[in-house]
Amino acid sequence: MALIVQKYGGTSVGSPERIKNVALRVAKWKKLGHQLVIVVSAMSGETNRLVALSKEVQANPDPRELDVVLSTGEQVTIGLLAMALKDIGVEAKSYTGGQVKVLTDSAFTKARILDIDEAAMRADLEAGAVVVVAGFQGVDEAGNITTLGRGGSDTTGVALAAALKADECQIYTDVDGVYTTDPRIVPEARRLDTITFEEMLEMASLGSKVLQIRSVEFAGKYKVKLRVLSSLGDPREEEGPGTLITLEEPNSMEQPIISGIAFSRDEAKLTVLGVPDKPGIAYQILGPIAEANVDVDMIIQNVGSDGSTDFSFTVGRGDYAKALAILEKVKDSIKARGITADNKICKVSAVGVGMRSHPGIASQMFRSLAEEGINIQMISTSEIKISVVVDEKYLELAVRVLHKAFGLD
Amino acid sequence: MALIVQKYGGTSVGSPERIKNVALRVAKWKKLGHQLVIVVSAMSGETNRLVALSKEVQANPDPRELDVVLSTGEQVTIGLLAMALKDIGVEAKSYTGGQVKVLTDSAFTKARILDIDEAAMRADLEAGAVVVVAGFQGVDEAGNITTLGRGGSDTTGVALAAALKADECQIYTDVDGVYTTDPRIVPEARRLDTITFEEMLEMASLGSKVLQIRSVEFAGKYKVKLRVLSSLGDPREEEGPGTLITLEEPNSMEQPIISGIAFSRDEAKLTVLGVPDKPGIAYQILGPIAEANVDVDMIIQNVGSDGSTDFSFTVGRGDYAKALAILEKVKDSIKARGITADNKICKVSAVGVGMRSHPGIASQMFRSLAEEGINIQMISTSEIKISVVVDEKYLELAVRVLHKAFGLD
Repeated sequence: MALIVQKYGGTSVGSPERIKNVALRVAKWKKLGHQLVIVVSAMSGETNRLVALSKEVQANPDPRELDVVLSTGEQVTIGLLAMALKDIGVEAKSYTGGQVKVLTDSAFTKARILDIDEAAMRADLEAGAVVVVAGFQGVDEAGNITTLGRGGSDTTGVALAAALKADECQIYTDVDGVYTTDPRIVPEARRLDTITFEEMLEMASLGSKVLQIRSVEFAGKYKVKLRVLSSLGDPREEEGPGTLITLEEPNSMEQPIISGIAFSRDEAKLTVLGVPDKPGIAYQILGPIAEANVDVDMIIQNVGSDGSTDFSFTVGRGDYAKALAILEKVKDSIKARGITADNKICKVSAVGVGMRSHPGIASQMFRSLAEEGINIQMISTSEIKISVVVDEKYLELAVRVLHKAFGLD
Repeated sequence: MALIVQKYGGTSVGSPERIKNVALRVAKWKKLGHQLVIVVSAMSGETNRLVALSKEVQANPDPRELDVVLSTGEQVTIGLLAMALKDIGVEAKSYTGGQVKVLTDSAFTKARILDIDEAAMRADLEAGAVVVVAGFQGVDEAGNITTLGRGGSDTTGVALAAALKADECQIYTDVDGVYTTDPRIVPEARRLDTITFEEMLEMASLGSKVLQIRSVEFAGKYKVKLRVLSSLGDPREEEGPGTLITLEEPNSMEQPIISGIAFSRDEAKLTVLGVPDKPGIAYQILGPIAEANVDVDMIIQNVGSDGSTDFSFTVGRGDYAKALAILEKVKDSIKARGITADNKICKVSAVGVGMRSHPGIASQMFRSLAEEGINIQMISTSEIKISVVVDEKYLELAVRVLHKAFGLD
């Protein structure tokens, strides 16, 4: 018998029919003798509806009151799922974040969990009931309702698993695990049985949106075993193993060096040409960009030869025009020779903890791309990741080539 | 400066536009220097939507979980109204029933209020904020969410006014007060400046659905001054006085003896003919009716002359067929001679505390009806009310005749 926390997202609970399916799935696990805590999101579309309603009343909704409104989405789902469970004879009890209680700081709309009182849930579990908890929400010390921000239900799941010392936290989603890359681009993409937290973090931030980064960090910190599973199959049948996200690095003899090829579309590149190569120049360029709330991803500065240097960075394509306008404004004050920009680029990355013990991965990657005539515009590396920026039109080709080159097919 | 509790129903907060109107109205009262506690219902249609959703999941929804789901309706409204107030520069803070806290018993879907903690609200009021409270909901001793049943928002308003010792509890609705009768039937109907709690109870139970009976009883018990006002006019302009519901009986020199003519359509009458006139017969007839959850209104039993008697009662028209079927079943066992029934009747009542000190009101009523050729089928009286059952087709005529006869035009 294990204590399992399961989290179901908005799509999984998007209609009364789907909520009944979740109840059948939970009943199956219960029948196997496990203790279950179920974390749910708002029904799909509900959070957006509530945000829109709030904005009709106040263009820029008051954060405290917005949380009061938004938290009702998950509250409806917990009630409905508890009903669905009781309807098929499974004892169940719902909890709002405040009822648990999930104590957070008072940063409305993006609160951080400080503590979880697990006593009441524990009593219900011991009594044989399934505990159904509203994700995404908590209360601060003064009893104000707070929310954790988008994707906060994953975080709630992990935090509950940590507090209850659960054997596993299972995240149900619309894919049956983490893949070596996007199967829509590479049909040969394979589901990974395991992936490390570090790899998952690199994969997630690069666009493999299976899990919220924050919950993965949280799970890593509190050593919670995370498993990604699919909620799409027949809820009464035996399930596949999904992908387990672990702390332990796999045995390198059995494991491929590269775990997956991640990628990100919708990037843009900006280069400031011929700026004086002297201290403070990076700040002079990126300071105004940061002040405008533009997230900068890769940053490249080459050593200059004639006392000047070229400075490049990438931003999300949505911020391209804003960033370009800022550069045009600061251009003269930093004595730049000019500015070039390109909003038709993408980023492709090879991710794997095996990289640490295997030098030469980078050169293998560059050779594979060169053989296909793909020009690399920028390179950035971390301990377990190599990213390259290439022309957007090469995205699919680059992903396929690398997927094959690193033996992932 | 007064402390005023205002309650706005589902129609008054039925859209973002209407919520903004309520905010303007509240701002107007605030500007006059009053302390304000605002109780709101769910946006119109929302509670029905949530009930339907629950029934899709569980045909007969679990009461505890139904309350978890239903209470979100008011929670959305408090957040939105607080936003609307802040948007026009009025400091405001929302409270769920649990946050107040409104302590109730654990009778889910029909809980009774046991206690209200007014300390937090008081602090906000002292600090100059408008307090916005979710009607219809509370929490029990164990922290479970409860609801008070339909119309519970009125009860919340009165209970808060009692706990805070408010100067007045104002119920905003879609009429500008309590009328001597329905103006759609008698154009000469007048708004009453004042009405007593007793009269209001009789008027409400007879179909003048301005206020929930339970909240009127509650207000009478705790001596809360209730005022009915309209939320339909321009929220920025000065308001009419509405109708004040008072404990004090008005000075009979100035006040008419009859305050209003109430009526109820959709009634049905059933008569059991020639049953033995002996103890226990009423129970033998009405026992099975009560067991079938049919509400009985008027009950008439005449003294029998030949050892047998006729026994009549009225029920809501929706229960007519059910009641009739029950009577057909018990007919033989109670040795009845037969059954007659009529589902085309209505009830018309004259209500007024002045009746106590003025004998002869009943005969005046019967004479007025007789002069118009209206046959009276049943009569029932209480200390401050005389009701008659007449053929449905005479409803409008009877109301007009009595409205005029008692000087209400």
